[in-house]
Amino acid sequence: MKLLTLARDLQRRKARERQGLFVAEGIRTVEELLRSQFVIRGAITSPALDTTPRGVALRAQIAASGIETLELADRQLETTSDTEAHQGVLAIASVPMTELWDLPNADSLRLLVLDAIQDPGNAGTIVRTAAALGVTATFALPGTVDLWNAKVVRSGMGAHFHHPCLSGTWEEFDAFRQRRGFSVWAADAHGDVVDGLESPKRLALLVGNEGGGLSADARARADRVVALSIASQVESLNVAVATGILLYELR
Amino acid sequence: MKLLTLARDLQRRKARERQGLFVAEGIRTVEELLRSQFVIRGAITSPALDTTPRGVALRAQIAASGIETLELADRQLETTSDTEAHQGVLAIASVPMTELWDLPNADSLRLLVLDAIQDPGNAGTIVRTAAALGVTATFALPGTVDLWNAKVVRSGMGAHFHHPCLSGTWEEFDAFRQRRGFSVWAADAHGDVVDGLESPKRLALLVGNEGGGLSADARARADRVVALSIASQVESLNVAVATGILLYELR
Repeated sequence: MKLLTLARDLQRRKARERQGLFVAEGIRTVEELLRSQFVIRGAITSPALDTTPRGVALRAQIAASGIETLELADRQLETTSDTEAHQGVLAIASVPMTELWDLPNADSLRLLVLDAIQDPGNAGTIVRTAAALGVTATFALPGTVDLWNAKVVRSGMGAHFHHPCLSGTWEEFDAFRQRRGFSVWAADAHGDVVDGLESPKRLALLVGNEGGGLSADARARADRVVALSIASQVESLNVAVATGILLYELR
Repeated sequence: MKLLTLARDLQRRKARERQGLFVAEGIRTVEELLRSQFVIRGAITSPALDTTPRGVALRAQIAASGIETLELADRQLETTSDTEAHQGVLAIASVPMTELWDLPNADSLRLLVLDAIQDPGNAGTIVRTAAALGVTATFALPGTVDLWNAKVVRSGMGAHFHHPCLSGTWEEFDAFRQRRGFSVWAADAHGDVVDGLESPKRLALLVGNEGGGLSADARARADRVVALSIASQVESLNVAVATGILLYELR
């Protein structure tokens, strides 16, 4: 498939899953992608890339790497990209790992499980946070935005390229969790305050969307429900901020 | 000034500061505004508000409150609002407190100080986080987005209506800090790890923009530089997430 057709096709989740490919948009994301071990299928650029020294350097790096490259007009690239500011560059690469079973069977494992996190910006920030706080992998359940969506990848700021981002069903999670002996802790405003709790060696932390509270599916699987101690009950935290604090407390 | 002219004028920071007014956009934000003690100058609605039961209820509440209201076509409201999805409603209200000296002179005070935080979404999430974690007030230094910008207010999810959001210069901060005896801790990747540190009774926590690191102005004022313990040095956290974790650790 030609690069242009491919990039447009990959705006749909089904196409990404079928092809095992995703799109990285913007200078920083593509820089990080080039620095990673990912297999890159091609790049699309436009004159907008030449408006900053960093963009010019990235163009040179892409040329030197021998990656198949297509040059478009700015307007054309705009209709091909999914995020607001493409900055004159996108790249197409392979999704490297797709199964929970591919994860290492280590003594100490931390799995972050996303239940119905719909906002791409929040999901990307969560992936970035999980990577920075030493989580083994992030697993997205149905109802959660595709972690390989271009907006999520962009908000991840490069974290996707060294932190496994997986997705699957509750049944896959159940089988994996049981076989590998994970404790499941779910985050909810009405749980045990997390401060000072000792975290199990193999922990799956379940977080759901703000406002929605814990889903019945999540509640049914939780060995423990945990919360942050928050000043006033009226307030809530953004889901990425809450997840960051929980992961920091439980690391 | 007529409501329509006023709302358009208030898209500019200078106008907001001169008039002492701001704009709250979207259903949730206006609901929270009506629940607050804020003085409301007027509301502008459009038919889009009637597409959800929650919108219909809000329209009834606005009507019952006796607030001056202007009905526009959806397209007209769009050109008047600053955020992507106005949801058929905005309201104009007075900014209640503008000076550090208006803050209570209590024993235990926590001030969050923002140095060059430019992204409105991050700034709003930070205000929301500060409110939820019991911070006394948020103070924006020059170079930081106006905390009363409509996008920031919207990301704040109502936190602006009970958490003081102030702005001013380094000189004002210096005078206040000295007179009220605040310790100043600044966040930076290369600081003392914050875990387990005992936080001063009167603490001003300075956070800067990601990537930029600590500014010279901030460094010159810091009694202590603090950091989060992060798995890999390659990684960084989103500024709102990092601020949330620091505030939680130091509460």
